[in-house]
Order: sequence, then C-alpha cells, then structure tokens
Amino acid sequence: MYSDRILNADLSQKVITSEEAASFFKDKMVIASSGFTKAGDSKAVLAALAVRAKIDPLKVTLITGASLGHDTDAALVEAEALSLRLPFQVDRTLRKAINKGEVLFIDQHLGETANLLKANNFPKIDIAILEAIRINEDGSIVPTTSVGNSASFAELADKIIIEINTKVPFSLCGLHDIFSTGTYPNRTEIPITNASTRIGSDCIPIDINKIIGVVITEIIDSPAEIAPADESTMAISKHLINYFTDEVKKGNLTNSLMPLQAGIGKVANAVLNGFLDSDFENLTMYSEVLQDSTFDLLDSGKMTFASGSSITVSEAYYHRIFNDFDKYKDKVVLRPQDISNAAEVIRRLGVISINTALECDLYGNVNSTHVAGTDMMNGIGGSGDFARNAYLSIFVTQSVAKNNTISRIVPMVSHTDHNEHDVDIIVTEQGLADLRGLAPRQRAVAIIENCVHPLYKAQLQDYYDRAVARGGHTPHILEEAFSWYQLQKETGTMQRLCELV
Amino acid sequence: MYSDRILNADLSQKVITSEEAASFFKDKMVIASSGFTKAGDSKAVLAALAVRAKIDPLKVTLITGASLGHDTDAALVEAEALSLRLPFQVDRTLRKAINKGEVLFIDQHLGETANLLKANNFPKIDIAILEAIRINEDGSIVPTTSVGNSASFAELADKIIIEINTKVPFSLCGLHDIFSTGTYPNRTEIPITNASTRIGSDCIPIDINKIIGVVITEIIDSPAEIAPADESTMAISKHLINYFTDEVKKGNLTNSLMPLQAGIGKVANAVLNGFLDSDFENLTMYSEVLQDSTFDLLDSGKMTFASGSSITVSEAYYHRIFNDFDKYKDKVVLRPQDISNAAEVIRRLGVISINTALECDLYGNVNSTHVAGTDMMNGIGGSGDFARNAYLSIFVTQSVAKNNTISRIVPMVSHTDHNEHDVDIIVTEQGLADLRGLAPRQRAVAIIENCVHPLYKAQLQDYYDRAVARGGHTPHILEEAFSWYQLQKETGTMQRLCELV
Repeated sequence: MYSDRILNADLSQKVITSEEAASFFKDKMVIASSGFTKAGDSKAVLAALAVRAKIDPLKVTLITGASLGHDTDAALVEAEALSLRLPFQVDRTLRKAINKGEVLFIDQHLGETANLLKANNFPKIDIAILEAIRINEDGSIVPTTSVGNSASFAELADKIIIEINTKVPFSLCGLHDIFSTGTYPNRTEIPITNASTRIGSDCIPIDINKIIGVVITEIIDSPAEIAPADESTMAISKHLINYFTDEVKKGNLTNSLMPLQAGIGKVANAVLNGFLDSDFENLTMYSEVLQDSTFDLLDSGKMTFASGSSITVSEAYYHRIFNDFDKYKDKVVLRPQDISNAAEVIRRLGVISINTALECDLYGNVNSTHVAGTDMMNGIGGSGDFARNAYLSIFVTQSVAKNNTISRIVPMVSHTDHNEHDVDIIVTEQGLADLRGLAPRQRAVAIIENCVHPLYKAQLQDYYDRAVARGGHTPHILEEAFSWYQLQKETGTMQRLCELV
Repeated sequence: MYSDRILNADLSQKVITSEEAASFFKDKMVIASSGFTKAGDSKAVLAALAVRAKIDPLKVTLITGASLGHDTDAALVEAEALSLRLPFQVDRTLRKAINKGEVLFIDQHLGETANLLKANNFPKIDIAILEAIRINEDGSIVPTTSVGNSASFAELADKIIIEINTKVPFSLCGLHDIFSTGTYPNRTEIPITNASTRIGSDCIPIDINKIIGVVITEIIDSPAEIAPADESTMAISKHLINYFTDEVKKGNLTNSLMPLQAGIGKVANAVLNGFLDSDFENLTMYSEVLQDSTFDLLDSGKMTFASGSSITVSEAYYHRIFNDFDKYKDKVVLRPQDISNAAEVIRRLGVISINTALECDLYGNVNSTHVAGTDMMNGIGGSGDFARNAYLSIFVTQSVAKNNTISRIVPMVSHTDHNEHDVDIIVTEQGLADLRGLAPRQRAVAIIENCVHPLYKAQLQDYYDRAVARGGHTPHILEEAFSWYQLQKETGTMQRLCELV
C-alpha cells in the first residue's frame, strides 16, 4: 500500500494511525511541526494530539515554521496541551491564551528560529511531525506546500513522524530547494544571486532511523482568507505604484524593479494586484508566502519567477494551481525559511519589502505586533528579516481604524518592532512618505503631511509642535506620548474632542 | 617633494594648502570625509573649512565613516557650517546643536550608509576628503588608520581631496582589504569565511581625474580616552567570562569561542581585558574598532587575529603599535565598514557581539541612543548591525548611574534601538540574564532577578506585578511606563521614596 508514496520498504511497514502517533507524545516534550502560514502543516497528528490531551493530559512546547491551519492551535489550547509556542501564530483562541499568560509565546524573526535551535540553547526537539508528498528510498522526504523549518527540524529532532498527504499531487516534486548553511564554525555562504537560483536538493534528507511512524492523510491545506480590496487598500496600492513609476522615471529603478516581498493580508494583496495593470515587466519575487496575487502576476506574464517558503492560497486558487502545476514548475521555488528570509540574500538581491504595520509613529517607528503595547496580535513574522535588509523597506497601513476612533499614526508607538533605522517608506490611503535620508524632525513633517488622516492631523501636529518646543533630536513629551491610548480607553476614541490647548 | 608619498607625477603638482582646499567648498555642498571613531579622519581640510566658514559663511552636509577626532565637529558647529550630519558622532558641542535642532542628524546603522548613498536617493557627494598614507601611480590610495566609508566615497564623489599624512608609517601598507559588493542588480557575495579572510585589494581605487588637490599633514589621530576599569566594570567582565566558561563546559562553545565584537568604552574594554587572565585560546575578533585591549590580547597570544574598520587606541599604544607595526601585519586587517558590519558575514561567522546599552527594560528592549527618549547621545553606530545578526547578542550596562538616582533597567525603554527579538543576554554588575528561548514574562523574571540594582528591585517588581495583573503577552501599564523619568525630573531620583502602593 502507498507504494508510490513510500518508496522505502521498511518504512511502508511503519504506517500507523494518527491516534497511534499521538500516543508517542509525553508531557513536557518539545514537538516541532511542519507548516508555514497554514501551508504544509500537520493535519492528522497534531489534531489527534489535541484529542488525546483532553483524555490524557499533557503539556508540550510546539515549534512550527509559522502559523498552522485547521484551527489546530485552537484545538491544542482548548485541550490545555500547550505550554510554550513559537515562533508565530494567527489563531484567535491561542492569542487569548497567550495574552492571559496561559500559554507562553516566543515571538521571533522567522529567519532566526533555526539559528536558535542549532545553537543548543533551547531544549532539544523530541519529535518532529513533517508533512510530505513522498518518502524516498533513502528516507528523505519531498515536502508539500511549504518548507518552513522542516529541514532544520529533520536535522535536529530525536524522532520523526511523517504525514504523507495523498491529496498533494506528485507534480509538486521538484518545487523545493533544500539547502543548509551548515554548522558553526564552518557555515557557508548562501550562493543565491537571483530569485530563481537553485542551490540545493529537491528533498529533505532524513536519518531513516529517526522515523518512528508514517501517518496517511488526505486533508488539504486550510484556504487563505483574503478580504477583498476596498477603496482604502486600492488607494494605498495606487500611491505605491505611482511611487515606483516615478523611481523608474528618475532612473533609480528599472522597469523590472527589484525582487518583491509582500506580507500577508488585504493591503499587501491589493498592492501586488496593482502591478497587474501597470507598465512594469519581468518582475520577480523573493518572499516568504506566495499568495493568489503571485499566481495572477505569473499568469499575466508580468512576473517571471517567484521564490518563497510556502504557497498559501484561497480554495479556488489551490485547485487551479495544483491541478495544473507543471505550468508553474519553472517559475516557482520553495526554500527553507532561514534561506527565504536570510539577511544575506535579501541584502544581496536588493529586495523591495512591503509589510503591514499595526501602527507607526511620528518618526517612522513601526509596531507590527502589540495592541496598546501589551496584547500580542500575531507576531513579527518575517517582517524584520526583510525590513532590516531590504533595498527599500516599505510599511503600509490604513490611517485610521474602527470607525475612525483609532489613528494608526500615533505620537509614539506602544511597541517597537521596526525602528526608524529600518523603515524607509510609510504608505497610508492618504499618501506616501519617503523617509530615506531624512532626520527625525524631517520625518515627522513628511509623515504628518502625507500619511495622517485629516481627523488626526491637527492633533498630531499639536503634539509635535509642543514636543519641538521642548527640544531634542527626536522631540517627545514622554508623559503624554501614550496618552492617545488612554483617551481611547476612556472616551472610545483617540480623537481629542475638546479644543486644542 | 613627497615623491615617496605621491607616486603619480601629475598629482605631485596638485599639492595645495589646506586653506586652498577649503576654498573649493560651496554653500549647500555634500561633503564626505574619511574617519571612523577618531581614526584616519581629515585633520587639515575640515579644520580649514571651519576656519573659513567663520569668515565666509556656508552650510554643508557632512558624511563620515563614524566619529571624528580633534574636535573637528565642534569647530564646524561653532562656525555654523553644518546643516546635516551623518551617520554617527560623539562630540559634545555637536550633540547640543543636534538636540536644539540647529544641526540635523541622521543616526544610522554604520553598515548601511554606503547602501543609502549607492541607492541614489540621497544627494550626490560633491567633494570627498580622504586621508592616505600614499597615492599610488594609478591614483589609488592606501588609507591610514581606518577604512570606514572611504572606498564608497571614492567611488561616489564628484571630486576628491587627498590628505597625505606623513606621520603614518609605510609599514601600514598592506593592512587594508578593500572590497566592493558591486551595484544592484549584480551585487556579489562577500566571500569571508573567517575573521582573517582577505578578499580584496590593499588600496582604494580612485578615478585620477576626480582628484582636485593633495594636502600634506603630519597631525596624528586623536587618542582614544579610555576610563580605567572600576569595581563595577570588572564585575560585568567577570560575569561574562564565567558565562563563556560555562558555555564551553556545556559544549556549546569551544575554548576559542566565536569571533568577538566589542563596542567602545570602558565596559567593553574591561570585558576584553578579562580574557587576558582566562583559559580561552586562539580567540579572534570580527569587529569595527580595534582598541588597546585588542592589541593586549594579540600581544599575549590569547588572540590570533583581529578584523576591524579602524584602529583607535590611546596615545601610548598608538606609538607602540605603529612604530613596530610589522609585528601585527599578519594579525590585523581593516575593512570597509559595509564589510566589517555586513549582516552576511556577521551571521556566517557567528560573531559574539558585546555592546553597551544606555538603558534596557523589563523585557530586554535596549536603548542605545536617546536620553529620556528625546536627546541624542552618540548614535546607534554598528551595534544594530552586530546585535541583529550575531550568534550571541550581548548588552552590558551598569545597573545604576548618577549616584544611584538613575536605574539603567526601567519598566519600558524610552527609545528602542534593539528590541526583544535581537537581544540575547543582558549583563550588569549585579549579574547576567540569558534571555534566549524565553517568553517576555520569563525574560522579565530573569532580568529583575539577575540585573536590577537592589535599590530598584522592589520598585520594578511592583510595576511588573501590577502589569501582569492586567494581563497581556508583554504586560505593561502604558500610562505609568515612563513615570520613572518624570519622577527623576521632579524629585532628582527614579527611586520612589514613598511606600509602594
């Protein structure tokens, strides 16, 4: 059985049920799972673990590539099975538990988790669960719709369970490019000089003796949910496209720009869709997540190649793309996340990085993670890997939220994920502020003028003027810097409705 | 004249006085100068520019490698000659002008200035002033005690003035390793795999037609002023040496550790001196600034090789080292600062990075630059280049300052240069907190327990307990987060002298 999926005869004897696999886990274990932004995650074994934990309690550490699909995190939280989770999540139930302190969470640059694990300062991984298309004769596996941290997990884990997903077609074999930088002190260069450079193998090497079970599933990835573009996101997209057009006119960029990276979400998606009707040509992508818009750009011929760590698409796109994947075979590559997000490659290629800010401040500092400085939203993800090393580091956000009661541009961000040193451009539906080569006081003027919603413009200008009157390189009124959050808490809006002093 | 210093006959006709050189500058020009932490800076021409500006006013932008010596920045400020300064400074007079808003300042990762300039989004450099030991027949130059951004300036500037420093001995020829990553979209790898790898040329190529004048000087570098070690810095050093010793015992590091980087200042110097009496061997350094302690380690045989971008030493060491430099020729290399501080190399080599924090907070966020969130001290320098990409990112600070009235560990830093994602270890004279693999609430416990001064321990614990009671992934009481600064302003101390609520 499954002779086309399990090419090693010994391993074909190790096929077990997900319930049997779940019985391998013990309290306090460190478990790793494949999965990056809902793609290529463990669907059967982690779900079975949640079921088991309800009957036979245990608490584990769970490390993934990025977020999981199928409400797996929620099921594990509800079973009280998680003690520590890293490096990223997007689950509503898990988020609540994290913010209550019931589950500890390490929010981490997605490009750096492999480094943390390889440096031996984190407990060893007991069991890794890796989704695969196929197990080769030598025990190596072909991953499915993501690579994430799977190659590192395979290297580091004591034991491994493979989830063979029979719904993922063989046509994806050859999509992946697995490369390891080696271990200190003999780490090597990552010889990628173009988004399309292939430097490794098409499968993940595994010590066959580590494999303790093979589980068969036919559950496909959770679909990406992409909110449709609206007036506001289309305005952001238009500002950016106009900006790129101007840069081409000035001779700073060619008509192919530089390799693009875009975060997840409706704003980033709208921006990428904006390229469809543009004059740009031969675009490439060096990103983490390949979304619907990536495949639209490939289909249109506007984009020639896309490199990522996962393919996370909506349900309709999933079937369209994977039922005819040979079409994309020479246009797409999936890499380990310490390669897709490597500082070295991002800097060398000169990536144009576009990520969403939760809020930003007068001076261009960006908060990507914490609501009111305290509650975790999702995590920093790969935004810092890209923003720090990009040729152009762009953050997009709508200028207001929640029926205009929240300004996304505040006097001082309540949590700093990306500071002034790493943020080149801020775009809202109001306009675009190019902060490169500007001192803080010039940055403030550019942001107030171009990005702030009219409802908050006078109020922010007033804060800035009074701060400047006190002086400083980065003028602030510390005792008032966070007052907008307090105001919103007390009155329901950040808008100061009384007369400006 | 100077036939051994100027090997090109045409250029030997271009020797001019510094006053003549100063006459080339015009209002609003962008000027670049060699110089990195006081080493290899323009001593004659910038000084003459300051003199001229007092009589014939002009305002210019000044870009350097890092800080200048000889009070040059102060002289330029006093002559009202600076409109914009980047990317780093340590001058008291300039600092005041920056904080008053009289001089604009761009505080920048030292590894990234070359990128900013090469991306064409900053005004073109009109004139670069470069200190050299010698001009070769083809117009290329051998720099002196630093490389800094000089190779980039030589490539990008319209015109160039060379300052030949006849006091710098020829024995420094061969010390430098000049390499350019090229321009987008054809940037190349930086093939350094060891602190000692040489990848480039020993001189900076210059288009000979750009050279508009050669000025001769015999002024040596300003000496580094290093405060002597005291009980507190020695305690910090001891905690770190003990930590490294434990890591070797655990098998996480070898007895040679990994290449070291250390910031400037008495704490970093004390830490490096701590290695002298240790059991470590065959240490190497991949850093920015090579200081007195580096040469002590080389002399002792404890260190086998040191790579930097400048040699910045005290007066006694200056003479000792440069009068007998052949001794160090095969043990030291100076590189352009976009190579010494390259993310790619720092990550690949696995640098252990040790930098000084101005303050840090409960969760391990670090402020390196701003006093009370507002006034610039020196700048971020290279600390971010190293902290983000290091194998181990360590920040050191004394737990209290100004006669115990200021705690260097605060509830929330007033400015974030390095956030929780990039800070692995915090060390004060009280102890060491290893934050790797810890969630924010665990980080807080470790920092309060190990790093906070007894005078502030209960007060910080009280803040943390009340924040945790409110909840959150990173518990904070926003309206109180900066209250310690206010308290200090009002009462002269951050210590809450009334009873804890």
